[in-house]
Amino acid sequence: MARPVIALLSDFGTRDHYAGTMKGVVLGICPDATLVDISHDLPAHDVLGAALELAAAYRYFPTGTIFLVVVDPGVGSARRGIAAEAGDYKFVAPDNGVLTAVFDEHPPKKIVELTERKYARPSVSRTFEGRDRFAPAAAWLAKGIELPALGRSAGAIHHLEIPKPQIGDNRIDGLVLRVDHFGNLITNIDRRSFDKVADGPLDIRAGSHVVSRVVSTYADVPSGEVCALFGSTDHLEIAANRGAPVHVARRA
Amino acid sequence: MARPVIALLSDFGTRDHYAGTMKGVVLGICPDATLVDISHDLPAHDVLGAALELAAAYRYFPTGTIFLVVVDPGVGSARRGIAAEAGDYKFVAPDNGVLTAVFDEHPPKKIVELTERKYARPSVSRTFEGRDRFAPAAAWLAKGIELPALGRSAGAIHHLEIPKPQIGDNRIDGLVLRVDHFGNLITNIDRRSFDKVADGPLDIRAGSHVVSRVVSTYADVPSGEVCALFGSTDHLEIAANRGAPVHVARRA
Amino acid sequence: MARPVIALLSDFGTRDHYAGTMKGVVLGICPDATLVDISHDLPAHDVLGAALELAAAYRYFPTGTIFLVVVDPGVGSARRGIAAEAGDYKFVAPDNGVLTAVFDEHPPKKIVELTERKYARPSVSRTFEGRDRFAPAAAWLAKGIELPALGRSAGAIHHLEIPKPQIGDNRIDGLVLRVDHFGNLITNIDRRSFDKVADGPLDIRAGSHVVSRVVSTYADVPSGEVCALFGSTDHLEIAANRGAPVHVARRA
Repeated sequence: MARPVIALLSDFGTRDHYAGTMKGVVLGICPDATLVDISHDLPAHDVLGAALELAAAYRYFPTGTIFLVVVDPGVGSARRGIAAEAGDYKFVAPDNGVLTAVFDEHPPKKIVELTERKYARPSVSRTFEGRDRFAPAAAWLAKGIELPALGRSAGAIHHLEIPKPQIGDNRIDGLVLRVDHFGNLITNIDRRSFDKVADGPLDIRAGSHVVSRVVSTYADVPSGEVCALFGSTDHLEIAANRGAPVHVARRA
Repeated sequence: MARPVIALLSDFGTRDHYAGTMKGVVLGICPDATLVDISHDLPAHDVLGAALELAAAYRYFPTGTIFLVVVDPGVGSARRGIAAEAGDYKFVAPDNGVLTAVFDEHPPKKIVELTERKYARPSVSRTFEGRDRFAPAAAWLAKGIELPALGRSAGAIHHLEIPKPQIGDNRIDGLVLRVDHFGNLITNIDRRSFDKVADGPLDIRAGSHVVSRVVSTYADVPSGEVCALFGSTDHLEIAANRGAPVHVARRA
Repeated sequence: MARPVIALLSDFGTRDHYAGTMKGVVLGICPDATLVDISHDLPAHDVLGAALELAAAYRYFPTGTIFLVVVDPGVGSARRGIAAEAGDYKFVAPDNGVLTAVFDEHPPKKIVELTERKYARPSVSRTFEGRDRFAPAAAWLAKGIELPALGRSAGAIHHLEIPKPQIGDNRIDGLVLRVDHFGNLITNIDRRSFDKVADGPLDIRAGSHVVSRVVSTYADVPSGEVCALFGSTDHLEIAANRGAPVHVARRA
């Protein structure tokens, strides 16, 4: 049987031991797990950013992958921990909306609250539930425990508002939702929405930049020139060919 | 049999190939090893910081985990390489005190010096013993070689002074020993020491901040407010709910 | 049989999901693969830097390792994707010269162009061929597919000019090609070239620094002092013992 895959996404950074400690906990429960980092360098406390990053990545993982998502500004508060099944995947996360973008594509088949104490560590820190509650839950799922064993049905869960582009008669207004490592500004304008409007000459305005042409890839324009294109998640990006990386964090 | 786990901790950063190269060496010797990064982004040359980070993490790893710890400002000098057994774990590191905090909790059962040349790479670089001496030693341990095969008994080893809080009649004086990715200031004041003093109203002074209440988790105070709490290693932290990450390195 | 090793090298950074997504794709095709990061933090678009980093690391990996190298400023353009066999290793990369330094040591036995569509993802993004073309090719190689199955013979490939030191009668002129995390300035002057010149007293000039002595390791000089030595790849370095890390990116 294939080894179970657990994919981790957090805002823990890589300087502290936090992500590694979660992996230690997982391997103590499920030594066979294959652990994959999606990122631990998400902007701190940015639940929306994490939701979008997860949505961009999850579909490329093998069927059955368990996503352990810990961007959790409400750690230790009344917000719940949940585990869910959606599409061909399982998810363990705080109930703060971080799974919204995935659930918009794949309505969850089942969501439980992480209430069963025997699938958490014996003592649960109020400031590090990733280690004591979420990592063990993901590991037990990897070991083959069924979702309902982890706790009672969760009922209604927290839903995050993900900004949608506004489509007018001859214009579309979107937002930059992610700025990636290369400085690409990734908007919420998907190709289908764009195509409804973009029939004929057009101006793409981003701040003080105006771009008139959508290209296919960065190298279609001279080095340093600003361009627009549909990137790897099929959303409109404003980019510069071989632009220097910028490090911008969206405000929480 | 479960696959052996090797957990890596270093100050190599992630930009260069150094950590990856150590893993390549490990897999050449022990292809079955599961490799887990605790961190490679520790402040450069900060042996005390590494000792504390290791102490915060190791107990969450599975029994038998081998910790490969390479924070080694004295690389290539007369300082020795050692391998040790303590608690349910094994450790490979330079003899510079980086294992002190672990050994304070679990006096080592056995410590050897890495003198046996056949368990190092044929040629050992004076500037990268992580690759040529420490990684091979960890890999051979993972493969089942016993500690004494790696070299002669180490005798007395280097001990690091880890600052302890000063407990007075009605006050306790501690130090900030770690600043984590979220900007939490983690002190050396453990809960037991704190409880000896904190009977009744109290002031917690940290720089110009005065905090009067110890809360249970970050979300117990409004966003941006400074608070005090016991974090995931049960030491007093000064924190701000959803504070922006700061990147501060303690002076070496 | 030993599990196949895939070692990843890219300039994707670790903040976005890109590297993790490539791993998800690999595991979907070859669940047994052991994935090792060499680095994802190479300076963006720096093909020469990637070539040198790869050359410093690859020989330490187990025989049969597949290197998945994605530093690809020309993504989606006419530049080709290739897979190659050289030494005891396999390589998947864009045809932009990133394998030059390896091939200088091990002339490739075979190079193919990644033209066979069934070993790519069904739809290939013009901006993320790492995910849709290179990762699948590496995974299929790991699964045992032979190189020629991936596409037609590549013919002549792109070759990168790697600056060599100029050796004169009583001097040698080199260049700093890498600056590592510790601030070590790593030149293109190898030990053999150096030895041709360095017979008797010498001056090593680097910017305004003059160093007169080559030491064996950093700790041979007092803390903070600038020294010269041959580092772990046997090239001359200008270094400072326990110098603070600097983060310098060579211009593309």
